[in-house]
Parts: sequence; C-alpha cells; structure tokens
Amino acid sequence: MQLWDLAAAEDDRRFSPYCWRVKMALAHKGLQAQTIPWRFTDTDKIAFSGQGLVPVLVDEGREVHDSWAIAEYLEAKVPARPLFEGAQAKALAFVFKTWVETTLHLPIMRAMVMDLFNALHEKDKAYFRESREKRFGMSLEQFGADPKKALADLRTLLLPVRKQLVQEPFVSGKQPGFADYILFGPFQWARAVSPQRLLEPDDQVFAWRERMLDLHGGLARKAKGYPVWA
Amino acid sequence: MQLWDLAAAEDDRRFSPYCWRVKMALAHKGLQAQTIPWRFTDTDKIAFSGQGLVPVLVDEGREVHDSWAIAEYLEAKVPARPLFEGAQAKALAFVFKTWVETTLHLPIMRAMVMDLFNALHEKDKAYFRESREKRFGMSLEQFGADPKKALADLRTLLLPVRKQLVQEPFVSGKQPGFADYILFGPFQWARAVSPQRLLEPDDQVFAWRERMLDLHGGLARKAKGYPVWA
Repeated sequence: MQLWDLAAAEDDRRFSPYCWRVKMALAHKGLQAQTIPWRFTDTDKIAFSGQGLVPVLVDEGREVHDSWAIAEYLEAKVPARPLFEGAQAKALAFVFKTWVETTLHLPIMRAMVMDLFNALHEKDKAYFRESREKRFGMSLEQFGADPKKALADLRTLLLPVRKQLVQEPFVSGKQPGFADYILFGPFQWARAVSPQRLLEPDDQVFAWRERMLDLHGGLARKAKGYPVWA
Repeated sequence: MQLWDLAAAEDDRRFSPYCWRVKMALAHKGLQAQTIPWRFTDTDKIAFSGQGLVPVLVDEGREVHDSWAIAEYLEAKVPARPLFEGAQAKALAFVFKTWVETTLHLPIMRAMVMDLFNALHEKDKAYFRESREKRFGMSLEQFGADPKKALADLRTLLLPVRKQLVQEPFVSGKQPGFADYILFGPFQWARAVSPQRLLEPDDQVFAWRERMLDLHGGLARKAKGYPVWA
C-alpha cells in the first residue's frame, strides 16, 4: 500500500491534517503503507488520481483519494476495529468532519500560519502564499497577526468536544474512531511545524491529545514535530 | 407516563426545545405520555424532581429529568427503534448536542426573542426577562435587535448539517435519531411562538425540517405554532 503524504522542506516533516487522519486510520486497522513525501506543486506525481490533492492511496492497483473516501475504503477492506460503529455513527462523524474543517481548522491556521509557511519546501512557498491569500482575502501576515486571539477562539470553539471528553476518553466514546482522527489532524498539523502552544495542560482536550499521541505505538508522537509541553 | 412540558400563555402552545426533543423521542419509541402544561414559575409543581426545570418525566413512579437522561431512560426501557445506534453514535450525538445548544440556539433566540417574550404567560414574563437579560448581559430588546443578522449567522452555522443532509435525509442517516430531535428542538421552539422565517425553501435544512414536521403522524406539525412557508 502506498500513501502520498504532504511533506515540508524535510521529507520526514509531514503536516497535512487530512493525511494524518488517514495514517491514524491505517494504524487503527493494523495496516501498513509506504508513505511517499509529496509537495503541493508535485501535481504531476499524482496525476494518475485525476486530481491534485493528497492523501492519495494505492492498494493492489486501486487508487483512492480524499480522506473520507479512504476511510470508507479501509472500513470495507478491514471491517474489524471499525472506524465507524454503524450508519448513524458514520453520519454523525460526517457532520463532525465538516464542523472541524470549517470551524476549528481556521483558528489553528491563524495561530501558526507563518510557522507553516516557513517550514514549507521552497518550491511550495509561492503556491501556498498565492492560494491561501486568495482564500483568506488577505496576506498570510495579516491572517496570522493575532495568534493570541486565534488560540482564545480555538479554546472556546472546542467546548462541544471538551464536554464529551469530561465523560469519556475519546470523542467517539471509550475507543477512538474516525471522528477522533478528524479532530486530531489539525493538532498534528500544527505540531509538525510550530512551537505554538495550542492547549493548556488543564484542558480535557490536552489530555485527549496526549492519548492520541500515544495511540498505535506512539505513531504521531514519534513523527517529526514540536514537543507538546505540559 | 407524565411529562411536564413548558407552555406559553395558552396551555397548548408548547415551546421548549428540550421538551420537544423528548416528545419526539417518546413518539419515536411508540410511547405515549400525558403532557402537563407548566410555566417557568411553577417550580413548586416539579419540586419532587429536586430541581426546577422541565422536561420532567414520571413513569411507573420513577422520576427522570434532563432531556439527555430521559433519552437514555427511554432507550433502556424500549431498546427497539434506537435513538442511539451504539456507544459511538451516542458519544457523537452528545458532541452534537453541545454544539447545537451553544452555537445554534443563540441565533434562533436572537431572531425571535421578542416574539417569545410576548407569547409567554403573564406570570412568567418578569422571570424570563430578568434571567435572560442577566445571561445575555443586555436587554431582550438589544439582544433581538438584528434578526436579519441572526438569521444570516444561523444559516452559515448550519453548514455541517447541511452537508450531511445533501447526502442523506436525516442528520443521523437514513432514519432519524436523537441527534435529529436535538436539532429539531430549536426550530420547533421558534415555530411555536414566532412567524419569523428561519430557513429559505431552497435550503436542504428546510427540506429536513419538513420531514421532521411530518414524522410520527405529523406530531410537531399539528402542534400550535406558525406555519412554515415554502
């Protein structure tokens, strides 16, 4: 199995929140994949997938892209250790996915965008600046001008997961599910490129992130990035 | 089974989003309860529950309060037609509950707060004004001063459910679950007291609300309130 995985300047600094979902899901299923470092501008290398974004997975000659489609593919391939415990859990995880992407990714990006920019491979910098400045409607510097406010926003927005994590160890209950990997993605995205402290140690979400870093033999903790200070 | 259910000036105008969750869940389970009209200031009438808020359910001499606890109680009593398809679905529904209560209730309240105030029983008005003005940190009139902005905010905030409803008829998938009743609560809250048009007919959430109004023999549609214009 091969997974094209977004890398920064260094081949082993992997930061995509969408790729992290997939790597955690692969480990959850007990599957191994060769991860191939890829940059935003390497679109020719994944042209076979018919689109230009990672993650792209190839398994036994079959190509699957989009992190949600990959999760569905892995669930069908290995039904044991489900990512989704059933159709209702999957529907609610899909709602959760959109909420995370449209609500939480933004303040995390604001808190560390210049660290991310500086960590990028040189060949990706112009693409990243141009595409993100167009999306945000302002310069990267303006977008990332107030990390303190971004972090305060993030901590407020995390309330729905925090209230769940007071009751159970994972967003998905007693065991992690794909919803946990979805939420973990942007934390690992930041951790890969930025020393910014996203969470306070007395936050239940901090303790959850520690559990996530420890899962699957410490897969995420061992990955190149900044330590998480307690 | 008896359910203490928040009423406006008229006994049959029932508006609590938390009580609506429970009434929909009872119908989902095929259960019937006698609903008892109750006002905010009738705390003595539910003093037996050890607290002062509805919904309060009494079944075979057992008292249960808090809408989530009632859902758990009903699920244990009637395991068929589950509200939660499993532990993971329940955990994700709990995250969804906090999100709805802390994110969506607010703009809906802003859009219709004076209609709600005007619909209240006279004996509840002083309590409502005082408690809500303290909570919001401003007068009801100030809180509800810009319903257009509140509705625009609401429609933006609904994106995570809208993306799910493009794919499947319910938040919970092919069948409604407790998460649907949680989201439906504040729409039925508004519908009971306000002619305010919360959703545009071309919105997938509008079509979902129509389906919710039709469920269980049109239970919610038959309830006293304003029509939903297409």
